[in-house]
Amino acid sequence: MLHSNYSVNGEGHFTLCGADTVKLAEKYGTPLYLLDENDIVKQCRIYRNAVKKYFSEKSAIYYASKALSIKEIYRIIEKEDINADVVSLGELYTAIKAGYTPSRLCMHGNNKTPEEIRAALGYGVGSFVVECFDELDSISEIASDMGVTAKILLRITPNIDCHTLEAISTGKLDSKFGVPIETGQAEKFVERALSLPHLDLIGYHCHCGSQVFEHEPYLDQLEVMMVFAADMKKKFGYAPEYLNIGGGFGVRYNESEGEIDIDGSIKLIGEKLTELCERFSLERPHVFMEPGRSIVASAGVTLYTVGSVKNIGDFRTYVTVDGGMSDNPRYALYKARYDALIANKANMPKDIVCSIAGRCCESGDLIGEDMPLQSAERGDILAVTVTGAYNYSMASNYNRVARPAIVVIKDGEDRLAVRRETLDNIIENDI
Amino acid sequence: MLHSNYSVNGEGHFTLCGADTVKLAEKYGTPLYLLDENDIVKQCRIYRNAVKKYFSEKSAIYYASKALSIKEIYRIIEKEDINADVVSLGELYTAIKAGYTPSRLCMHGNNKTPEEIRAALGYGVGSFVVECFDELDSISEIASDMGVTAKILLRITPNIDCHTLEAISTGKLDSKFGVPIETGQAEKFVERALSLPHLDLIGYHCHCGSQVFEHEPYLDQLEVMMVFAADMKKKFGYAPEYLNIGGGFGVRYNESEGEIDIDGSIKLIGEKLTELCERFSLERPHVFMEPGRSIVASAGVTLYTVGSVKNIGDFRTYVTVDGGMSDNPRYALYKARYDALIANKANMPKDIVCSIAGRCCESGDLIGEDMPLQSAERGDILAVTVTGAYNYSMASNYNRVARPAIVVIKDGEDRLAVRRETLDNIIENDI
Repeated sequence: MLHSNYSVNGEGHFTLCGADTVKLAEKYGTPLYLLDENDIVKQCRIYRNAVKKYFSEKSAIYYASKALSIKEIYRIIEKEDINADVVSLGELYTAIKAGYTPSRLCMHGNNKTPEEIRAALGYGVGSFVVECFDELDSISEIASDMGVTAKILLRITPNIDCHTLEAISTGKLDSKFGVPIETGQAEKFVERALSLPHLDLIGYHCHCGSQVFEHEPYLDQLEVMMVFAADMKKKFGYAPEYLNIGGGFGVRYNESEGEIDIDGSIKLIGEKLTELCERFSLERPHVFMEPGRSIVASAGVTLYTVGSVKNIGDFRTYVTVDGGMSDNPRYALYKARYDALIANKANMPKDIVCSIAGRCCESGDLIGEDMPLQSAERGDILAVTVTGAYNYSMASNYNRVARPAIVVIKDGEDRLAVRRETLDNIIENDI
Repeated sequence: MLHSNYSVNGEGHFTLCGADTVKLAEKYGTPLYLLDENDIVKQCRIYRNAVKKYFSEKSAIYYASKALSIKEIYRIIEKEDINADVVSLGELYTAIKAGYTPSRLCMHGNNKTPEEIRAALGYGVGSFVVECFDELDSISEIASDMGVTAKILLRITPNIDCHTLEAISTGKLDSKFGVPIETGQAEKFVERALSLPHLDLIGYHCHCGSQVFEHEPYLDQLEVMMVFAADMKKKFGYAPEYLNIGGGFGVRYNESEGEIDIDGSIKLIGEKLTELCERFSLERPHVFMEPGRSIVASAGVTLYTVGSVKNIGDFRTYVTVDGGMSDNPRYALYKARYDALIANKANMPKDIVCSIAGRCCESGDLIGEDMPLQSAERGDILAVTVTGAYNYSMASNYNRVARPAIVVIKDGEDRLAVRRETLDNIIENDI
């Protein structure tokens, strides 16, 4: 199957990490998100071991919380020695309330409000990635007020095209993120950061995009950044102790996609870094990476109950489920392609091609189109795979549909991590 | 300005229904949704008066809750003698908890779960719109179990192309909604509905799409439906008491769009109905309409605080705000175009063209691109207009950003209708 944690048991039921998904649907109801802890741990270790080995002992992985920010994820990753990015007060608060060590956190995001900067400094986050001049001034002022010093990295736009979707490509010159080198603005950004009080510039940050399957963009980006670093060293005598090269390694959502060799790619980046540092006579910086999707995506499966099967003459079949764009808006947003199967018929051939329709009152509410599937009927359990990233985190209450529960599986045992939303949750802020 | 409820006061501040939006931003914080009750009431009356006048006294308006389902909206519309559609248990529950009369509700939606059907019958909703054969059987069974009879309308797909966005076009043959006439399935649908116990078939339902600016699709759709009704009368002796012609009248989001004449369009539909009934010797059915967007859209304005202004060389300016796709995903989803202005500089000329970027960690998180705007700086209040529909209802906690409060304005006076989400709300279901 698509990932090694997916299988089929003797009853012909689809299993995640050895757990029977049909039984889990019965136990917890649908729609339901499942999350395989073993798979998350496996991914954490691949990344952590590679950065320690190919970069340095002080190099680190920062999990990009936006992929999935729930209390349980911070408990799982901290045990694996993984740091975390947070991009809002909400993500920061979730990590803190999970008992996660604040100094492991990096405060990220392209519009940090004064309230958020204050809270982050108050909790004692380890560092900030600074997006723009306005924010630099604001962090300096608030840190001065509070009598603390903020460790910062500057987000630089390297102008790399990594051939991914426009909505998730972030490293281009024309981006809402970071400050571009080409226009001369990044140089002024460094100059200003070095001049302001209560700021400790520890390095640079860059990120070329998301769902990237080649390592070339990372090597190109690294070269741009090290040329820039050498230039800044010449101009201001400043060299970065840390370089954050972002995340974005692609995830295999379906059979047509390949898999990126994480360890091998990081090895190549490490070699390139050594070469560039020698070329520019720079001390080798420690490296941070920020995977999000590739830590949690393949760990996730969403279970639905089939509500109806509708054949329109001979040319289209709609299989309608009890969730949809409210729990997974990625087809509506990006036409993102997923694989699906009937969990209670997982050993049967996929003999139909159908559209899987969500329950929201909107034609665009689809999980996908032209999807091969086992013959379905009302009451079947439908599983959509590789939903661990950007599903729960992007979920809404569109049509006032309650958001599903999340159940974590470890060594085949299930436990609840996020309770299903209740109707009273949905109306609790209504007056 | 775009709508008659928008204006500028003596201080140069943008006003909604006479209320100073800059002062409201200060009082309630940002991001903030505003909702003009007077405008909603005005729209309700235009619709209600037109259907009573051009159709019949028993004809009615059903507000499509999915556009905005909060307790306060049900209180506002019930005073105006407006019924409501609900498409989920969540919308149903919201209406009930607001004290809305259950018999005014119609249970809609393309995948009603057994739990929802049972709840709807238990609360005593007035009717159901039935989407498919599976659902017909299910409603009949559950109604039998409960010893009640469900009044139903059958959703028929008329195969009308109304030239709107694919994601919101619903009346085509290839649709997840309804049962098509062309394939012969609609006829069987009627036959089955007439044969099942505990069902009272009161009529038909159709809906051609959303954001429609012409009346022709409605006239075409009406003709298809009445031809079908005449055919069914001949075959089964059944004629509908009610015909639900859906909603979808377009809303003016920006200067380049026109405005639909609601009263005039309904008048034309009424005349066409009379003509068709005479032609086919059918008794004139009472008519239901289901506007959602055109009841609440122009009543809404969203206020943000500008966090930063970023010029990339000479060719692009990003104005970044403290909200984004988490409170308004419509640009990310459909490239829906909005108008914006700096509320505290509303009497100044729009002298820049910019992209308005949201705060979510995603390049696609934009409110819009190439938008004319007054010169902006950190701390300004930015207003986006015509956000009353499909903004709060589609809002998420992406990046764990809290959903804004909703403040209702009536005769220039403000009152809180939905409280701002707290950080504790966001993590309340996390274990």
